[in-house]
Amino acid sequence: MAASAPSSSGGEPDPNSTNLRPPGTSYDAWCGVAHGCTRKLGMKICGFLQKNNNLEEKISSFKERSSKDLLDNSDRDSRFRRTETDFSNLFARDLLPAKNGEEPTMQFLLEVVDILTNYVRKTFDRSTKVLDFHHPHQLLEGMEGFNLELSDQPESLEQILVDCRDTLKYGVRTGHPRFFNQLSTGLDIIGLAGEWLTSTANTNMFTYEIAPVFVLMEQLTLKKMREIIGWPDGEGDGIFSPGGAISNMYSVMTARYKFFPEVKTKGMTAAPRLVLFTSEHSHYSIKKACAALGFGTENLILLSTDERGRVIPADLEAKVIDAKARGCVPMFVNATAGSTVYGAFDPIHEIADICEKYNMWLHVDGAWGGGLLMSRKHRHKLRGVERANSVTWNPHKMMGVPLQCSAILVRERGVLSGCNSMCAGYLFQPDKQYDVSYDTGDKAIQCGRHVDIFKFWLMWKAKPQHTNVCFWYLPPGIRDMPDGQERRDRLHKVAPKIKALMMESGTTMVGYQPQGDKVNFFRMVISNPAATRSDIDFLTDEIERLGHDL
Amino acid sequence: MAASAPSSSGGEPDPNSTNLRPPGTSYDAWCGVAHGCTRKLGMKICGFLQKNNNLEEKISSFKERSSKDLLDNSDRDSRFRRTETDFSNLFARDLLPAKNGEEPTMQFLLEVVDILTNYVRKTFDRSTKVLDFHHPHQLLEGMEGFNLELSDQPESLEQILVDCRDTLKYGVRTGHPRFFNQLSTGLDIIGLAGEWLTSTANTNMFTYEIAPVFVLMEQLTLKKMREIIGWPDGEGDGIFSPGGAISNMYSVMTARYKFFPEVKTKGMTAAPRLVLFTSEHSHYSIKKACAALGFGTENLILLSTDERGRVIPADLEAKVIDAKARGCVPMFVNATAGSTVYGAFDPIHEIADICEKYNMWLHVDGAWGGGLLMSRKHRHKLRGVERANSVTWNPHKMMGVPLQCSAILVRERGVLSGCNSMCAGYLFQPDKQYDVSYDTGDKAIQCGRHVDIFKFWLMWKAKPQHTNVCFWYLPPGIRDMPDGQERRDRLHKVAPKIKALMMESGTTMVGYQPQGDKVNFFRMVISNPAATRSDIDFLTDEIERLGHDL
Repeated sequence: MAASAPSSSGGEPDPNSTNLRPPGTSYDAWCGVAHGCTRKLGMKICGFLQKNNNLEEKISSFKERSSKDLLDNSDRDSRFRRTETDFSNLFARDLLPAKNGEEPTMQFLLEVVDILTNYVRKTFDRSTKVLDFHHPHQLLEGMEGFNLELSDQPESLEQILVDCRDTLKYGVRTGHPRFFNQLSTGLDIIGLAGEWLTSTANTNMFTYEIAPVFVLMEQLTLKKMREIIGWPDGEGDGIFSPGGAISNMYSVMTARYKFFPEVKTKGMTAAPRLVLFTSEHSHYSIKKACAALGFGTENLILLSTDERGRVIPADLEAKVIDAKARGCVPMFVNATAGSTVYGAFDPIHEIADICEKYNMWLHVDGAWGGGLLMSRKHRHKLRGVERANSVTWNPHKMMGVPLQCSAILVRERGVLSGCNSMCAGYLFQPDKQYDVSYDTGDKAIQCGRHVDIFKFWLMWKAKPQHTNVCFWYLPPGIRDMPDGQERRDRLHKVAPKIKALMMESGTTMVGYQPQGDKVNFFRMVISNPAATRSDIDFLTDEIERLGHDL
Repeated sequence: MAASAPSSSGGEPDPNSTNLRPPGTSYDAWCGVAHGCTRKLGMKICGFLQKNNNLEEKISSFKERSSKDLLDNSDRDSRFRRTETDFSNLFARDLLPAKNGEEPTMQFLLEVVDILTNYVRKTFDRSTKVLDFHHPHQLLEGMEGFNLELSDQPESLEQILVDCRDTLKYGVRTGHPRFFNQLSTGLDIIGLAGEWLTSTANTNMFTYEIAPVFVLMEQLTLKKMREIIGWPDGEGDGIFSPGGAISNMYSVMTARYKFFPEVKTKGMTAAPRLVLFTSEHSHYSIKKACAALGFGTENLILLSTDERGRVIPADLEAKVIDAKARGCVPMFVNATAGSTVYGAFDPIHEIADICEKYNMWLHVDGAWGGGLLMSRKHRHKLRGVERANSVTWNPHKMMGVPLQCSAILVRERGVLSGCNSMCAGYLFQPDKQYDVSYDTGDKAIQCGRHVDIFKFWLMWKAKPQHTNVCFWYLPPGIRDMPDGQERRDRLHKVAPKIKALMMESGTTMVGYQPQGDKVNFFRMVISNPAATRSDIDFLTDEIERLGHDL
């Protein structure tokens, strides 16, 4: 992963990016892909692609399989349906714990698994669409037997199975090799198995009592993550939270508690006017946290970035000095490790120096880029992360863990639990027979907490790799226009139009957005292990095909 | 469900509770079970038990099945393992999207399903333990082949499957008919199927774009829930959140935004000193919200309750008047519908009158009791809920939906999104081709949001039916002691000791806690459809057996 700001530098070919282009397409229609500033990125993508490019042929060989295939339809039927069960006369009330419920329960679950395994196979099959797009009103009106409305009468298990198939049919295959739309992509089989098990265990993270194994897995995994960050002996604290936004919110809360613990009991009136700092390119969750926690978004000061989207440390220091001069107390700085749009990494060491000088909490939002800490080759991008007071790291992004899996890690022990603990007597009885320091629930702002650890733990055991590329597509009609407002206005409409056509055709998916003074551009996320070079070529071809006449 | 405060009224038999006792056990050792104040509850439990008591014989008949059973071991093997796959030489890298990965992927997933379906069957089997308890240090040291430590080398799929089995083996069977430990119990098969599908779809709720079906299901279901609350035409707003604590936090944030919208941008300094009110028996998440959002826990005023744990409206009004006299601004009242420990319902109508009189936001925390709104017979307990400004309702509690599934519902449209929206350009592009009012993500304090709707939607389609009973067990040695500090001290130690012995034996699970001036008592939650009268008898017998000599 590397920072890649879009560029409209025109039609000049870039030697680093030739590997990205299918032979025979007009390169000069493209700009920004592996642009000058992303020279290393270009190399990296190529490396990545080369490492994986035999996958393509591998996978296409699936389709050539003969009917002797062990998993062809007739065979699969005999595997899954020992008895041909008629589900049309069976209802939820016939399943366990009902009398004689075991057989229908097993048959029903196996039928569901048949639907799911078929979906998994199709997900990796390039001959299938990424999505079968319908507008909200179309799905709401009902699609041939698929009715979203909730009825007052119980449906048969047959209909429930049809609903399961249709839900997948009209959804988006986020694990498809040509889905580049979000930072979270891919369908990891080990992670999937872990999530199926987690649902079946159906328990809650608040106490050791009811989640002994998961609580310990969480503690061991968090410790390992802290070791990888570089905190001595993996000491510190942390918790898995429902996503990066909540993890970032934890960091702000924890910082406030560290400096002004009395806010917990007395409210924000007990603190002076506090200000926080983050990149203009940072994730909006920092702003949400400021709104929610009572700081106010106006007290979040946005930092200027260089051309690659990285915070300019001198701008931070100037704004800290200015805030102090206005009587405010600078409390918190967020450094982004892998920004949402460009994939930029803020310079942590330089920011840490300023934090130390002015006694501010340093948080590193590595929701996206944290995964690089696992890479000997790429972790240098987060150099200095060990100086952070807290780190957000989402294994459900770059590491491909199924949603949701996000950790907040805190260097100093005690401050996270001090910030959040309320000691509810009905959960956290001190007179239990086991070591209650394992009852981690009181550290959370949640009470019940979903088990997000198991899939990650299992994947970690099973395995011990990604990139944002931002670019504009310039249709021929725009290419020769002189730079100016009219050209900008027209270019701004190109990406939404292509995206709309792309969704209608359902062949691939990629995101777009404007940023700062830059009009709408595409952001391609390469984080899906199933995606090969040909899939990226496919995307660029599709964009060209759909956008040529715009 | 009904309020049931524990009682130490001594050994006098209560006519309402005889149905709860197994014949031949000494009733006089029990007190509080269906105590006088819970007369109706006693009747209701009996009704509940009678409705289900033929289940018991049903389920025991499973064990008598002959070897011709379709699901016996040899048969199951032939169903699941068409090919005897040797997983010891297979690794995660051999699974999809790897070359020839389809066959090992399918075999691996089927093997996992075999483990899971076996677990499901055992969960409903009373001859199995609820848990196989081990202390943290024991699990950390490693149990015969089950090592929680994360290694640096990838494990074979064989080991991964062993890890899956062991994770379930050392966990707690929250769906077991004798698990009474938490408000969330049971293992609903339709919900489980829904959750397996959700994990396989592996998508995110932030936009219609990548979760079209799930977003629409959420909207339709939330509307239905608002209709059931009684808001005209189901109008209003809402969202599924990661649990009741976060839903309650949303209610406080939304109320603040309604009265003091400028806090979003300017912080708490833009508001006067705000106070909030909640029952001394309410869930601790209201207090957590006050700490997190910058109000301060001291500005949360606790309301006195009657002997059944219900808020005394006159106490609320007196405290509102007192707060105003001290220069504070009363802003928010939480009424609990189904308190965590006693299962008490605050009188909503009386509280709503006071809220209207003093212009305060009324939130109803129906995390536990909200499910009763679905019952024609029991919804009267939430009479007045339609006057609330917001309601928390957790289908993952009383309605048995797998964890996590919690909704926050808001009567007035626009205020929830106004409170939280930040309009991030990379997700919520206004120039999309579809109706972007379906991009609901910006209403959330989260960015990514787990899909919690599908399992609930599917259960609702498949079905269109609980109680807290709090009690002390008085061992013979305590029964005849005179009331006083010594007796209280001894009684306080009884429940923890019994619980510890119970967990060691692993036969059943029930929670305990002190509350106010009441020493440790048991809280039995009857919310698991698999639990029959005999299971409750089993629990009471176990408590007597384990506690007799204390």
